[in-house]
Amino acid sequence: MNWEELARQLTQVNQAKIVLLVIDGLGGLPIGGQTELERARHPHLDELARIGSCGLTDPVFPGVTPGSGPAHLALFGYDPLKYQLGRGILEALGVGLDVGPKDLVARGNFATLKEGLIVDRRAGRISTEINQSICHKIQEKIKIINNVEITLVPGKEHRFVVRFRGEGLNDALSDADPQKEGNPPAPAKALKAEAEKTAAIVNTFIDQVTLLLKDEPKANTILLRGFSQQPAIPSMTELYQIKPLALANYPMYKGLAKLLGMEVENIGPSGEDLATSLRENYEAYDFFYLHFKKTDSAGEDGNFDLKVAAIEEIDAIIPRILALKPEVFCVTSDHSTPALLKAHSWHPNPLVMVASSLPGDNLPAFTERNCAHGSLGRLPATAVMPLLLASAGKLKKFGA
Amino acid sequence: MNWEELARQLTQVNQAKIVLLVIDGLGGLPIGGQTELERARHPHLDELARIGSCGLTDPVFPGVTPGSGPAHLALFGYDPLKYQLGRGILEALGVGLDVGPKDLVARGNFATLKEGLIVDRRAGRISTEINQSICHKIQEKIKIINNVEITLVPGKEHRFVVRFRGEGLNDALSDADPQKEGNPPAPAKALKAEAEKTAAIVNTFIDQVTLLLKDEPKANTILLRGFSQQPAIPSMTELYQIKPLALANYPMYKGLAKLLGMEVENIGPSGEDLATSLRENYEAYDFFYLHFKKTDSAGEDGNFDLKVAAIEEIDAIIPRILALKPEVFCVTSDHSTPALLKAHSWHPNPLVMVASSLPGDNLPAFTERNCAHGSLGRLPATAVMPLLLASAGKLKKFGA
Repeated sequence: MNWEELARQLTQVNQAKIVLLVIDGLGGLPIGGQTELERARHPHLDELARIGSCGLTDPVFPGVTPGSGPAHLALFGYDPLKYQLGRGILEALGVGLDVGPKDLVARGNFATLKEGLIVDRRAGRISTEINQSICHKIQEKIKIINNVEITLVPGKEHRFVVRFRGEGLNDALSDADPQKEGNPPAPAKALKAEAEKTAAIVNTFIDQVTLLLKDEPKANTILLRGFSQQPAIPSMTELYQIKPLALANYPMYKGLAKLLGMEVENIGPSGEDLATSLRENYEAYDFFYLHFKKTDSAGEDGNFDLKVAAIEEIDAIIPRILALKPEVFCVTSDHSTPALLKAHSWHPNPLVMVASSLPGDNLPAFTERNCAHGSLGRLPATAVMPLLLASAGKLKKFGA
Repeated sequence: MNWEELARQLTQVNQAKIVLLVIDGLGGLPIGGQTELERARHPHLDELARIGSCGLTDPVFPGVTPGSGPAHLALFGYDPLKYQLGRGILEALGVGLDVGPKDLVARGNFATLKEGLIVDRRAGRISTEINQSICHKIQEKIKIINNVEITLVPGKEHRFVVRFRGEGLNDALSDADPQKEGNPPAPAKALKAEAEKTAAIVNTFIDQVTLLLKDEPKANTILLRGFSQQPAIPSMTELYQIKPLALANYPMYKGLAKLLGMEVENIGPSGEDLATSLRENYEAYDFFYLHFKKTDSAGEDGNFDLKVAAIEEIDAIIPRILALKPEVFCVTSDHSTPALLKAHSWHPNPLVMVASSLPGDNLPAFTERNCAHGSLGRLPATAVMPLLLASAGKLKKFGA
């Protein structure tokens, strides 16, 4: 089904507002017989499961565990196999670096060069503080190469992200990384003729950095990997004729939202921050993506009780959202993060959607197992946007 | 969704073992209010439906009744529309004829030629015994044409399968069959230039057989249809990095398993034969396809009670499988064969999957109607392999 093509044909503007609350990593697995969602007290979510339509969604395909990138793309109606975001782009979004259509980004490692060989690909895992000071030093000395502006953002330990901004850059480049220690440095190679100019700039940058850092004891060169550019991806406004706002705390989700053309509001990490910001911005937009991260973080840490508490925290703000009377209100997740597995998983996302045009499922509680009995059934996550738009009256009839 | 491409990216090797028990034709329809599965006593399957995740799968698409070929391909994660097995291949597998990458196979009919016209396309449905003796006579006299080795295997009544084995054969051939009685014989025609040599060999074979059989009263010529070669199909090991073993009794399922690169163990037809062979081979493989045929045969015969008995027979061996403690155990079917219809049908397959990473559905019994309420929902059969691999920890995360 080519939803993208249908969306361009069928969407229409109206006054209805859609609120999509993404409780990151919400789905879980039983420990002691109950999942996190089954253990937590969440009377407001339970009320939604009574008055709304419920189901389960698969982000990519049953059995496939998604990263946050593909999981969110699917939720916003983009085919996650068609739009694959390069690793460099995701790292850049993760450190809060803005990535525009002319930019090229890459992940970087500081490394140790000795007698012409890379002897440590992680520069002895230098401290984050040393990393920051070295990035600052490079940034001071190397700002532009061949009209291409260069920006470094330090990450943890030996890691950083670099952005090249200028005309005619191309990401068809091999990694500038010998992969194994004991090998000489490997310059980036152009994989297509169009990328030769870019390869030259990237390699000049590496050479200049290596010269600049020649007296550093450990971090005396860099490796660059995962060269990538912003994918040619249509904006949500172009596809759906909506005016979307993202409310998020973590850089990666804000970056993803920007990539899809959403306006982004920086907020704090709590449920209350989401509710307050939603109320403040409610008049100016018609689509709201609310991202709540604490559930996923607790799941990744394997902290069942903390995830339960996070679910209870986000449940508490639901009356404040409902008080705004959005025409469509949906609560779901991008992917599951069971504390049992301490990682993202392939398990489907519980989902509830409330709108005057959707029947109430009268489920006794909002849980994974109850959502399996919901009237929406088990759906690909790419069905969520069509259902949200339809429930809001923003989709015209297809065919006569 | 291009699962094949994802599988190549995401699968990883580990020690976990997967047992997939295919109860052929398991799904049924009610007679006197109950389906075969509802009528049978199967306490072990019921226990699986309590501790495992249940659902229903569609082999090809809702409403589409599959043959055994596409139904099994889908179950093993192959798109059954992309990989269409020629009728000749399936007939050859069905009679236990080995089909290699250089082979061309076709279905044959004995027919009656009179005054230059095909007057009976089935040679008066000669007995299977006469068929066997004529096939033997042909095989004795005609072994090789133009360096191409010829092998005949008699089937029922007037039917046989022929295999041509040699270099440069091509299956782009029209049927050597006038289709209607009263027409003259129709030689095979090359549909592409590359198939001209093959057409000449096939037509020489038909001429030599017709000369040899000129004194037979009925079966004095042959018609050949469905010329086909082994499709270019990636092996399960190539796609999934598993070491698969098939335990099956019927030639067709063993042939299909070989086509997908599985090792094949010949076993008897009973449930006990499956359990014993699984235990004997358990250490050497990590994926086990167990095929149980009796349910399908009883369904095809319209014998409701015999199908009930077959379900009870296979239920009895489940404790022996569980005793091996496979990380993932799945019971399902390739397609439904309701005794009511005496044929394969389009009804979805009940499915249960047990693994430590799958929640228990607490269903009261393993039946078609209960599986409709399972947490896996209704899935395409091509989702079974991804779910098995994911549950066994054999799939990495997609994207970041």
